[in-house]
Amino acid sequence: MKKIIYLLTGLLFTLSLMAQDDSAMIKKITDEVLTNGKAYEYLRVLCKQVGPRLSGSPQAAKAVEVTKKMMEDLGADKVWLQECIVPHWVRGKKEEAKIIYAGGKTYPLDVTALGNSRGSGDKGVTANVIEVKDFDELKALGEKVIKGNIVFYNHPFVQTFINTFQAYGEAGKYRFAGASQAAKYGAIGCIVRSMASNVNDFPHTGVMGYNDSFPKIPAIAISTLDAEYLSKALKTKMAKQVYFRTNSQMLDSVKSYNVIGEIKGTEFPDQIITVGGHLDSWDLAEGAHDDGSGCVQSIEVLRVLKALGYKPKRTIRAVMFMNEENGGKGGDKYYEEAKAKGEKHLFAMESDEGGFTPRGFGVSGSKEVVEKVKGWMPLFHPYGLYEMHEGGGGADIGDLKQLGTVLSNIYPDSQRYFDIHHAATDKLEAVSERELKLSAAMMAAMIYLVDKYGL
Amino acid sequence: MKKIIYLLTGLLFTLSLMAQDDSAMIKKITDEVLTNGKAYEYLRVLCKQVGPRLSGSPQAAKAVEVTKKMMEDLGADKVWLQECIVPHWVRGKKEEAKIIYAGGKTYPLDVTALGNSRGSGDKGVTANVIEVKDFDELKALGEKVIKGNIVFYNHPFVQTFINTFQAYGEAGKYRFAGASQAAKYGAIGCIVRSMASNVNDFPHTGVMGYNDSFPKIPAIAISTLDAEYLSKALKTKMAKQVYFRTNSQMLDSVKSYNVIGEIKGTEFPDQIITVGGHLDSWDLAEGAHDDGSGCVQSIEVLRVLKALGYKPKRTIRAVMFMNEENGGKGGDKYYEEAKAKGEKHLFAMESDEGGFTPRGFGVSGSKEVVEKVKGWMPLFHPYGLYEMHEGGGGADIGDLKQLGTVLSNIYPDSQRYFDIHHAATDKLEAVSERELKLSAAMMAAMIYLVDKYGL
Repeated sequence: MKKIIYLLTGLLFTLSLMAQDDSAMIKKITDEVLTNGKAYEYLRVLCKQVGPRLSGSPQAAKAVEVTKKMMEDLGADKVWLQECIVPHWVRGKKEEAKIIYAGGKTYPLDVTALGNSRGSGDKGVTANVIEVKDFDELKALGEKVIKGNIVFYNHPFVQTFINTFQAYGEAGKYRFAGASQAAKYGAIGCIVRSMASNVNDFPHTGVMGYNDSFPKIPAIAISTLDAEYLSKALKTKMAKQVYFRTNSQMLDSVKSYNVIGEIKGTEFPDQIITVGGHLDSWDLAEGAHDDGSGCVQSIEVLRVLKALGYKPKRTIRAVMFMNEENGGKGGDKYYEEAKAKGEKHLFAMESDEGGFTPRGFGVSGSKEVVEKVKGWMPLFHPYGLYEMHEGGGGADIGDLKQLGTVLSNIYPDSQRYFDIHHAATDKLEAVSERELKLSAAMMAAMIYLVDKYGL
Repeated sequence: MKKIIYLLTGLLFTLSLMAQDDSAMIKKITDEVLTNGKAYEYLRVLCKQVGPRLSGSPQAAKAVEVTKKMMEDLGADKVWLQECIVPHWVRGKKEEAKIIYAGGKTYPLDVTALGNSRGSGDKGVTANVIEVKDFDELKALGEKVIKGNIVFYNHPFVQTFINTFQAYGEAGKYRFAGASQAAKYGAIGCIVRSMASNVNDFPHTGVMGYNDSFPKIPAIAISTLDAEYLSKALKTKMAKQVYFRTNSQMLDSVKSYNVIGEIKGTEFPDQIITVGGHLDSWDLAEGAHDDGSGCVQSIEVLRVLKALGYKPKRTIRAVMFMNEENGGKGGDKYYEEAKAKGEKHLFAMESDEGGFTPRGFGVSGSKEVVEKVKGWMPLFHPYGLYEMHEGGGGADIGDLKQLGTVLSNIYPDSQRYFDIHHAATDKLEAVSERELKLSAAMMAAMIYLVDKYGL
């Protein structure tokens, strides 16, 4: 009995020393990031020197160059490009759209072509507009009402979800699948209310996909303000028709790259820990939150560990994934190569929910892993992180699950994200330097714990 | 024994039902605020129709009118003005400041007179600049070095404090007391690095105070960007002198008002619960976060309770305090009248830390009270509030402690506050509608619990 008590006391003592060490190390990491961190400066380069960087664009190529240089400059052991073939969608000349009132007066609308959608042709589309709130209503109206018309999905975000990603998840299907669903009933054009939490005059683009069974009709998003206006106008019966023209087209796929930087592990170099974001953005926006933030935070994770002279046991990689927005080809490639090479990917974390104040983490893994990570959470309380959600990860790292990788994401505050997501307002000025850095520090702290203790 | 078990089971059952009720009510409150809440619309009026509203200004008088009307319109049982006499400081014509290089070249600086400071006179102040980082350095230099010169306090925010109010607390003394401390050693002017977390070219004003034992020298804040520039310039020895002119003056005090709206309690109408913010702002800014947010959230607390048909047991008051920024006369008056009338003030909550995402509450009260409120915190977890800090309150309600009132504050995320605090950038566009509303809902939820259970 005495022996057990000695052992237990010893264990508790060790655990508490360990926690003290970790807490000191996490403070060192955070202090370094908050005082000397470069994440915001990196982001300034991505937003202001590179700008919007849709897959296949010259800016995407420039983003590859500059982030490679950033990782070389911070002293990563190895920095390389991983080739991937990405879709090359172009918007073409600026879209045009207007309400046509009885009598011929018109009212211009703030719109954007949906990503990957086909253009309307030079003549554009002019037709009566049928407003629906959801697919059930569309189906109930059926071909008799829909045929030859434009379908307008006016499905606002549910404001009562506290996490705005839930509202995005609920409404997003109208943007992604709305055009083909409408075409199924004979619609010739599709208008979607922008996927946004707020009401203003900035349209939000985003990816859509066609179902090959139906005609591929042109599709636009309309600003939330104009969605409300159009809805009211349609109720007056003075306004029935809308004209819109989009000029987008899908060109041939092109070569692009993921950018990877790593610090080699000293004890288990074959165990890989990945932290990443996606380098491409929509063409309307600087992609400051989506996902310049995730990229520069990931680079900052390498930078701070180097700056503190930390020698990881395991290999730590920062990955700038290409083409998350309209194809996911970078993520696919990263997984395929990992699989082909038989790499051991222990843990992968993505930051792709904006560079906001950190609130916690998401984790997908075995029950034991989840419990282990939960056990670390008190170390994050001094920084205001209290939440750990099961089922974490990200679009670019999702496939790694098939290799048994524990997936994770930094979980930032979500209130402002869908005000600016995929819109021209997603620019550097919308990012708080301290929020960005604090999240980067917390990502580095989690990577440190995973590296130190394994999973 | 059995009886005790029955009793305990009964008690637990009651407690759990109670928690279910409360959790449902808090969801109702939150849903109503997030879908129909008017806080942001109220704030638009305060920022865009009224604008900057320094005590004694015509806009402060207009703010009194419009917030009175808001509370009448939402159906408060009683809305009234509480007279108070406030200082009337005016900035006068725009300040001017420049570095004078050897040879006569100049470099213009972004500056603002500090609130309540005296003007420099038309000729302005021209003198050599002595940079110090703190009072210790000032003292060590002493009269020999300081006399006849301008003192420049270049004390940056400590970035490693996670709560930015801690950095403000640490640096704020140079703004408040720097001028008189410098005058003590014979300085003829005072320049303070703006109290800000970030580095940009917006100067931040704020209150200062003179010590009557020393000459009352003019005092300005310089933007953080220009503080860094000036510091570098001074090191070159090419730049020694600065010229600045301020035109501010303190006029005679004037009559103003707190604006109070209340819903009368049904069971204990003499027990008063106060929720408030301050109506005045600095003259440079729309005062969106500081403290338009606190005002409109407090009005929203009344609105949501009315909208849900909730009949409080206790009397609930929303108070727009006047003159928090440069005198605190509104808060003084509220306390004095409460004391004179022998009012029983059970609980007072202030919102004056910006309209950001809510993270928790501060509470000052007996150990029992603190424990009771802590016991309610799980009800707030679904909304992301995990923190309860002892020692809460606010500048306008602080005196109520002498009446035994439990003091509290909503505790919002602090990362962005000192980027914009007291600067021209504190405008409506810096406020997120969802963050503002979510905090308002959490304030209403806490008021509901205090009303229901007492303290």
